[in-house]
Parts: sequence; structure tokens; C-alpha cells
Amino acid sequence: MKNLNSISLKLSESGELLILDQQMLPDQENWILVRDPDHMIEIIQQLKVRGAPLIGVAAALSLALWSQKNQPQLGQFLQVSMSLRQSRPTAVNLMNALDRLNQVAEATKVSTDSILNCALEIYQEDVDLCLQMAQVGSELIQDGDSLLTHCNTGGLATVGVGTALGVITQAHSQGKKIHVYVDETRPLLQGGRLTTWELKKAGVPYTLICDNMAASLMAQNRVNRVFLGADRIALNGDFANKIGTYNLAVLCHHHKIPFYTVAPSTTIDFNCPDGASIPVEQRQADEVRGVAGSFGQVRWSPVDSQVHNPAFDVTPAHLLSGLVIDNKIITPKQIQEHGNLKQALL
Amino acid sequence: MKNLNSISLKLSESGELLILDQQMLPDQENWILVRDPDHMIEIIQQLKVRGAPLIGVAAALSLALWSQKNQPQLGQFLQVSMSLRQSRPTAVNLMNALDRLNQVAEATKVSTDSILNCALEIYQEDVDLCLQMAQVGSELIQDGDSLLTHCNTGGLATVGVGTALGVITQAHSQGKKIHVYVDETRPLLQGGRLTTWELKKAGVPYTLICDNMAASLMAQNRVNRVFLGADRIALNGDFANKIGTYNLAVLCHHHKIPFYTVAPSTTIDFNCPDGASIPVEQRQADEVRGVAGSFGQVRWSPVDSQVHNPAFDVTPAHLLSGLVIDNKIITPKQIQEHGNLKQALL
Repeated sequence: MKNLNSISLKLSESGELLILDQQMLPDQENWILVRDPDHMIEIIQQLKVRGAPLIGVAAALSLALWSQKNQPQLGQFLQVSMSLRQSRPTAVNLMNALDRLNQVAEATKVSTDSILNCALEIYQEDVDLCLQMAQVGSELIQDGDSLLTHCNTGGLATVGVGTALGVITQAHSQGKKIHVYVDETRPLLQGGRLTTWELKKAGVPYTLICDNMAASLMAQNRVNRVFLGADRIALNGDFANKIGTYNLAVLCHHHKIPFYTVAPSTTIDFNCPDGASIPVEQRQADEVRGVAGSFGQVRWSPVDSQVHNPAFDVTPAHLLSGLVIDNKIITPKQIQEHGNLKQALL
Repeated sequence: MKNLNSISLKLSESGELLILDQQMLPDQENWILVRDPDHMIEIIQQLKVRGAPLIGVAAALSLALWSQKNQPQLGQFLQVSMSLRQSRPTAVNLMNALDRLNQVAEATKVSTDSILNCALEIYQEDVDLCLQMAQVGSELIQDGDSLLTHCNTGGLATVGVGTALGVITQAHSQGKKIHVYVDETRPLLQGGRLTTWELKKAGVPYTLICDNMAASLMAQNRVNRVFLGADRIALNGDFANKIGTYNLAVLCHHHKIPFYTVAPSTTIDFNCPDGASIPVEQRQADEVRGVAGSFGQVRWSPVDSQVHNPAFDVTPAHLLSGLVIDNKIITPKQIQEHGNLKQALL
């Protein structure tokens, strides 16, 4: 079997799928051997693997490897595919990847070699699309820029160099002098735990902030551009992304700071007309009452506090300066002119 | 001696000053016996006592009680007063309270009884001003309102019913059905630890959120009004308050949601022309790299992460719907018409 090796996912020649446990970062780098799709669902739901593109690739590989071992009938294949599909409700890359495997399974009478090849294609496409986005997006960054990003969108969110963070590290590797403000990204701290870890590895200078500090940095002209990812993009350009994204969109609009989302075309939901149609996952109250991870667990608010904990928010397209999608930069105006994002990308 | 008894500060008849250790809330209610002004400085800097009005009252009482015991010369008195004054740089109530004691000391050749009376007056004024603000401010709240607040501005921030939170609990006690969204207020979690504790005690329904969630609530029309406090108000109406305040101001402006700051007139710096002249305290990096308190201590980001950690931000007056100051509601327009806040209050 083909040997795959990204910073967050590995496939050995003997067909063992390994996932880097992101809940243990930045302190420990533990790899989880994925037993089967049920195990993958658990790993996805516990956010041991996360990042919209990475979830799609990981789920597809686990389904393909399980099929190789078990040679299922179509009905059973589609059933397992459906459980994987339902593991998280917002990121659409997962649905898109599984739909592709389903189509191959249906068209080939469950040829497990074809299914595996399709999953490997999805992997390679993610790598290639990341490189394209990094190349195109990095042209938006100028020498001396001070950037701001939210959540984690790097090699821990994809199997390639990442989406928004790939753009940023690409600009750095081009020799542009940049500085990155990193939102810690409450409640699950993907910025504080993962983006800091990746930027440190890449040697990119960064400053960690709490999410509520971005506004005053902007008022002081200390942020030139904001880049972040997307978990689902609707046909009109509205998009769901990690909670706090819409906050930054409003702040950028107010301060006239360019605001870009960076995502592969696999993040587009061609069946979704607008942001209002995107389902948003509500997560457990304890995530907001305190913090928990490999670093420990504490709770600082009353144990019975009522909590609101949406994993994502929705940003309307008109607040975007542009969407970096694959090898293109699309503006909200272009989406309007073409009627929708699908047409604008043609 | 007069017996004082607020939820955050006590003075016994024998002259013992006790401070509720706010770092131990909400899990433990520990009272600290204040030994002398040096001890008070330590208590202030460690945020065991916090809230702009409360810090002013606590510092004034510790100086007055120390003077009673030690009968200092004017020079020594002013020196101790100056060290208290420098314990935190942004909240101006502290400076205003100590300036009043200094004036009494100078005018009375350090009559320690006069100094103590002045400190007791400052205490009583804070109680009275809180009641006035609660009364006037609560008229802005309608039955059925969904409110949002930031940091802690209640009985733990004053020696009275509070500023913004006093307004909110007053509306509740008037029988208005209200719901309060509470920003957790990173990094030190005064919302998650203290405001939740106070609202629970007062029986006011609340929902705890992370600071980056307010924007999407506003987009969903789930916030009718925002009330929060101030640590220093400049003559043009600009004000410093807990980091994250300016973020909310921009969000309210964008979503056309009324946005009020509530503060006693002791929070006005009559020597400060505008927000740009307000010094903003930078605090330790470890506060952002993790959390620490009576609930435990964890660090989730790399130990050497560079961090930006301003305790406050500055909100320009034009983003305010109004300032509730003592028994008045002042609009930015009134400040402009009268030339400055001092004139507008006359």
C-alpha cells in the first residue's frame, strides 16, 4: 500500500492508519492506531482529529481500509459511511469525501480497490489544493505585514500545508517578514495549543492573545490582514467557521482591514444556498465552564452554570474581502455578478 | 468604630479591615485580614481585590486605619499614599480616593480622625452612588430584555450593589423578566467566576458564554442591550474598561444594539482629555498561556509563547449609547454639546 505521511495522519505500507492525537498537543505527540470506522467516529467526536479537510480525508481512509478488510455489501458500506457522515454536523468536507466514496462503491459494486484509490485521491487532492491555496493566498501578504488568525488551519487541519496557516507559512518561507497574532480560540484553544505549536515549528514569529484582544490591536493599527479557514461555504459565499470568526469579520469591517477565508473547494456545499441553511453544532457545557485536555482539567464557573456553546458561527459573504479557494481568489462581488459561488469558480 | 459590611469588604468595630479573596471565588469564600497598606498593595496587585470603585475604597480604608495606628507625619503619610496609588495604573477611582485623603491630611495636619472620616465618607458615597446608578440605569431595561455584560461589576467590584451589574439586578428586583449573557472575560475569567456567582446568588437567570460568542448572539437578535463598567473615563467620554469592552462596543455599533457604561463619578479622570491619554496596564504572559486560581492551574500553550496581555482597552465615546453616571444618563452628543463630560454633568 502507498505510504502516506502528513504531520497529522500516517498510513503505513501494511495498511495501518495512524492519527496524531491533537488533544495531547502541544505537550505530547501521541499517535492513535485507528481500529475501524467506529473508532474513527469516536476520535472525530472527541476532537482528537479536527480541521474540516483533515476530518474528510481521515474518515474516507478509515472507511476504505475497513472495506478492504471486510469486503462489505453495498448496504453495509453505505450504512457505515452514513455513521461516519453523522459524526460531526457542520464541516462539509466530511460529507463531500464520503459522497465520493459512496458513488465509487455504487458504480463499481463495492470494488474495494477502487474505493481505496478514491480515498488516496482525496488525500492527494488535499495536499495539492493546500499548495495551490498557499501559493495564491501568499500573494496577498506583503513584506512587513502583521497578520491575525483564528483557530488552527495548518498541517493539523489538513493533510497538506494547511489552508489559512499554509498561506501564512508560505509567505514566511518566501522571505517576507511577517508577524502573526494568534487568537487562543476559546473554548477548545486550538489557537493557543495547536497554531502556536505549528508556528513555532515553522519558525514564524507569533504573539498569542485572548480572543477579546483583537479589537484593540486593530484600533491601534497593529493588524494588516486576517486569514482564517472555513468549515462549510454556502453557494452565496456565506461560510461557517470556528466560533469567533464572525466577531473578527465585524471587527475587520469596522476597521477596514482585509479579511480572507482560505479553503479548498471540498469545503463548498453546493446544496446549501446561504449561511442560514448551515447547521451549527452545539457542544457540551463543560467546555465553557472550564478547560480540559492533556494539560489538565479545571472548572472555574459554578458547576450548574447554564452555557451557550456553539462550535461555529456563520459569516455573511459581504464581510469578506475575498475567498481563497484552490488556485483562485473570489470576491463577494464576483459571486454576486455570477449569481453564485459555483458559477464564479468556473 | 463604624461597622461596615459589604459582600466584598468588612470593617469591624475594633478596626479590623477584611477583604474577600476574589481569587478563591466561586469555590471558597475566604476573608483576608489586611495588615497594613503594603499588604493591601499586594492584595490589589494579585487581584484578590478588584473592581475600580472597590479598589479605591479598600485602599483609602487601609491608609486611614494605618494612620490611626501609626500617627504618621505628613511626609510619611503622603509616601504611603503614593505607594498605594501606584499599585495599579489604570483605574482612577484609586487615585481619586487617595487624592481626597491627601487633601484632608494636608488641610488638617494629618488629623487621623478626619482622614478616617473621609475614608468612611468615600465608602458611603460608593454605596449611595451604586443605588443611584441602579435606579436610573434600570429604567433603560425593559421587561423581557436579553442583556449582555462583561467582566464583573457587581457587589464584588464596589462596596454597594455594583455599577452595571447593580443596574441589572435592580431591573430583576423590579420584577422585569430578564436574561443575562455573561462573557467569561478572559484571561482572568471575572465573568465566569464572579458574575455567575453573583447572579446565581441574586436569582437572575444567566447564560455563560466565551467572549468570542457574543457576536453571533447579536447577529441572531438575541441581545437587546449591553451594560458594563469603566475603570477610567476621560473628559471627552472615552473610557478604559476590562479588555474585550471595545470589542463589544464595535459589535453593538454594527448590530445597532444599545451599549451603556455604568460608573460612579469617582471613575472620571478630570485631568485626562481623551482615551489616548489613559495608561493601560500590561500583565504577565502566564495569564494568557493558561489559567490559574483557587480552582487549579494549567498551561496549554508553549511555555515560551510570546504574549500580548493588556488588562484594559479603550472605547471611544462615539460608540456609546450613554454613560450612566451617578444619577444621570449622559449621551456622547451631550458631551460634545457641552464641550466635555464635566460640563455635561453640571
